[in-house]
Amino acid sequence: MSILVVGSVAYDDVETPSAKRKRQLGGSATYFAYAAAHFAPTRLVAVVGRDFEQEHVALLRERGVDLEGLEVAEGKSFAYGCRYEDDMNVRVTHFTDLNVFADFHPKLPRSYRDSELVFLANIHPDLQHEVLDQMNRPRLVACDTMNLWIETAREPLERLLGRIDVLMINDEEARLLTGERNLPRAARRLLAMGPQRLVIKRGEYGVVMFSADGVFTAPAYPLEDVFDPTGAGDTFAGGFIGSLARSGALDEAAMRRAVIHGSAMASFAVEDFSLDRLVRLSDEELRERVRGFRDLSRFLDPEIE
Amino acid sequence: MSILVVGSVAYDDVETPSAKRKRQLGGSATYFAYAAAHFAPTRLVAVVGRDFEQEHVALLRERGVDLEGLEVAEGKSFAYGCRYEDDMNVRVTHFTDLNVFADFHPKLPRSYRDSELVFLANIHPDLQHEVLDQMNRPRLVACDTMNLWIETAREPLERLLGRIDVLMINDEEARLLTGERNLPRAARRLLAMGPQRLVIKRGEYGVVMFSADGVFTAPAYPLEDVFDPTGAGDTFAGGFIGSLARSGALDEAAMRRAVIHGSAMASFAVEDFSLDRLVRLSDEELRERVRGFRDLSRFLDPEIE
Repeated sequence: MSILVVGSVAYDDVETPSAKRKRQLGGSATYFAYAAAHFAPTRLVAVVGRDFEQEHVALLRERGVDLEGLEVAEGKSFAYGCRYEDDMNVRVTHFTDLNVFADFHPKLPRSYRDSELVFLANIHPDLQHEVLDQMNRPRLVACDTMNLWIETAREPLERLLGRIDVLMINDEEARLLTGERNLPRAARRLLAMGPQRLVIKRGEYGVVMFSADGVFTAPAYPLEDVFDPTGAGDTFAGGFIGSLARSGALDEAAMRRAVIHGSAMASFAVEDFSLDRLVRLSDEELRERVRGFRDLSRFLDPEIE
Repeated sequence: MSILVVGSVAYDDVETPSAKRKRQLGGSATYFAYAAAHFAPTRLVAVVGRDFEQEHVALLRERGVDLEGLEVAEGKSFAYGCRYEDDMNVRVTHFTDLNVFADFHPKLPRSYRDSELVFLANIHPDLQHEVLDQMNRPRLVACDTMNLWIETAREPLERLLGRIDVLMINDEEARLLTGERNLPRAARRLLAMGPQRLVIKRGEYGVVMFSADGVFTAPAYPLEDVFDPTGAGDTFAGGFIGSLARSGALDEAAMRRAVIHGSAMASFAVEDFSLDRLVRLSDEELRERVRGFRDLSRFLDPEIE
């Protein structure tokens, strides 16, 4: 199945307790597309400035990312700077320069309109609507959002929830959207707002998926060295949608596998800066980590068999 | 295998967002013993005052808890009062009246000394040592502790770690003990301090177990209504040790099953005040919840089989 992502392509300055790197390739659409393209061809819609490097165009293209939808505008690319504290869950933003991204309106090339699996990365809900308005009945639409839109664009966001299949957010956002502290209760409310399926990202605690088919939980892979958490959520989403595309199925079993593949991809992404670990990831390494996920939660109880 | 627990028996005043209850039966040894005795006979060492109710003696005895080690001292029983906020992870202590517990020194009846599985609930490490000094080579010793002892009694606590097999603490305590924020790294350090196995309780995020055999993760059961979280950790420990006693095995498979049985027992305990839900719990209900845990993390990936 064909995949489409709409989101940001950016240059990030990232500082971690152990190292720092300037102007590394980042952005939600970048991480998503690079992870998804491990599984299946992926089309990208985003905007960059004249400063966008040819080597990064080449990196994405060689991976199998279709860049017909990558607009190059007058000005500079979206730039973002942050520092992670010793507690890597704490990120301090140094700067957010929207640049060409400030006036971004997604324009889908004609060849993209029949994409079957769509991921609306974290952009303004009005823009997410604009994407869907240009689509030709996709089979599955997943979307992300953030606190800012929940607080400042709730109306278009709630309307969007009626147009999507899978909502992928973190636990804090789920609580903010519903005003409900208890996660299973927040999940029930969110499912009543439109999406058939809810995938809640919980950082070092893994992922939990809610739907009418039940609840599925996946732990985070226990890593002694988390090098750079930037893009972990979008990499998860890319692995999730990529896995669905490769399997060709959208049932509960495929969704559970997709959560594991997404978690595995994200666990690799954080092992190095930017896309560096994903660039050198082999399919056998991925399978080995998926086996690791299986072993993490495997138990036998003769009394219930 | 025979089980021994040493800890507190208390009367708790508990207030939750939806209800409150005064002088309910509580204490670490109480929750542990009541849960463990669902699986196998359990011996209890603790102290209560003259105010301890006969109905509570009867409740424990009818469950199969051996009370020969329950000392009755002049004075009042340990009393504790707390309130849970809307965010049930936040507990505000109203009062802690140690009463007869202030001078407690565990005295093991002769018949207890050959107990095979021992749980040292959260009491001063010096007292935990006193218990082990009276034991006759148990097969497995598990212990809990708390921030207070980590900060004020580190020397006897670290010495204790060399005498036990399983350390059961929460993630905050693991970080405090090691000064290490990353949990897998904290786990490696703790295992180097003595215990063969580490069981980290993470509240609504479940449990993770570390040992030379690998890592095992169990989610918390997704409950829409957490009524009273008091005693959840000790109930978990009781289910864990009880499960080992009933299976008669101490290998990795038995330990994983024990984590699930402990998690299942804890998930029931929080559904009502005090021991109320455990009192009316059937073995079939427990099996059904264990099946629920299996389904929570079950996935199939043909590529790795």
